[in-house]
Amino acid sequence: MEFSDCFPVWDKLDGTWQRKLLAGVTLRTVKKGGLVHDGSTECMGLLLVKTGRLRAYILSKEGREITIYRLFDRDMCLFSASCVMRSLQFSVTIEAEKDTEVWIIPAEVYKRLMEESAPVANYTNEVMATRFTEVMWLMEQVMWKSFDKRLAAFLLEETVLEGTNCLETTHEAIGNHLGTAREVVTRMLRYFQEEGMVRLARKTVEVVDGAKLQSLCDA
Amino acid sequence: MEFSDCFPVWDKLDGTWQRKLLAGVTLRTVKKGGLVHDGSTECMGLLLVKTGRLRAYILSKEGREITIYRLFDRDMCLFSASCVMRSLQFSVTIEAEKDTEVWIIPAEVYKRLMEESAPVANYTNEVMATRFTEVMWLMEQVMWKSFDKRLAAFLLEETVLEGTNCLETTHEAIGNHLGTAREVVTRMLRYFQEEGMVRLARKTVEVVDGAKLQSLCDA
Repeated sequence: MEFSDCFPVWDKLDGTWQRKLLAGVTLRTVKKGGLVHDGSTECMGLLLVKTGRLRAYILSKEGREITIYRLFDRDMCLFSASCVMRSLQFSVTIEAEKDTEVWIIPAEVYKRLMEESAPVANYTNEVMATRFTEVMWLMEQVMWKSFDKRLAAFLLEETVLEGTNCLETTHEAIGNHLGTAREVVTRMLRYFQEEGMVRLARKTVEVVDGAKLQSLCDA
Repeated sequence: MEFSDCFPVWDKLDGTWQRKLLAGVTLRTVKKGGLVHDGSTECMGLLLVKTGRLRAYILSKEGREITIYRLFDRDMCLFSASCVMRSLQFSVTIEAEKDTEVWIIPAEVYKRLMEESAPVANYTNEVMATRFTEVMWLMEQVMWKSFDKRLAAFLLEETVLEGTNCLETTHEAIGNHLGTAREVVTRMLRYFQEEGMVRLARKTVEVVDGAKLQSLCDA
């Protein structure tokens, strides 16, 4: 799979811009757990995932985390390139959740392209609107949903993403996704276990009654 | 003040588009407290505030509210026109906090303009990035800040917006801004009063020690 197959408005660019982009783009490989962007204001460029999975999260001063979105194959991330838009003034940290290959588009190249090309600017709009929708969904969850429902929904989503009911994870990692202390996760998982919805073991959480978890989400 | 003075990329449009926009735009007057957009998926068009103040908020099923941003003179709102971008899939409710005059740009006109004009598409990007930054700030507040700090920051911000230390508001209205039950607001305001930071009376909250409120925020 080439860059031109992944960049959605490739066919709307003229040959000069296609060559400029290809000349600027670099492919980077990041091991599972590796940091792609450290949340500083450093403008590393835009990310376009070739294969793998990235997690974008925000971090409190005290080191607590909450996942704000994930990026899959062909997804683009703008927030590693805050210099592209002067109104973007917040920082996210981006790490690889799986071994990941990611293209990096230099910020200054993309910025000029966006200024010249309405299709690229509109595509950028759509990418931002998608992330915005995800963040608004998260805001609603955090504001109005109790933690048991958020945890149940997260576990069900993970079984789909990982393709297995037996999740290799820690209570701390789950807490970092959901913006919650590890102790709170442990307490709720134990309650889920007592209710027969999950089975806990060292570094695994197994979903044993997905239907019951789902009915908890829907309640 | 004319529409052409408020629309930021007016000078970058050719005469045909300037005429199309002027022909489509309508000016609407909304009384303080009136609803501009009811949060349905109805695509009413983009809003451009001429004078006044709008509040955009999300609403839970149970009727709880939280303010996600406010719009002042010359600010534009995209989220009353979700049909302009197919990836925008959440709804906000927009009400007037003061008597407000607002231009409504028809969605289909703006959509075509954005598709043709890179400056308009880039301007739209900047507007969305600004709102995104506000929502991320809010997310951080909600996730990591204790309620006393959020309430103190809100009261200080209100004194600046209203130009007075004596705020005409109710505990319920404050709760609706901050996504919190009225009882929680009342309890915290009473604590602030005991600490000499505010003075409470019927439908007013007076800030009497702004410096102490500020040091609470900064703590």
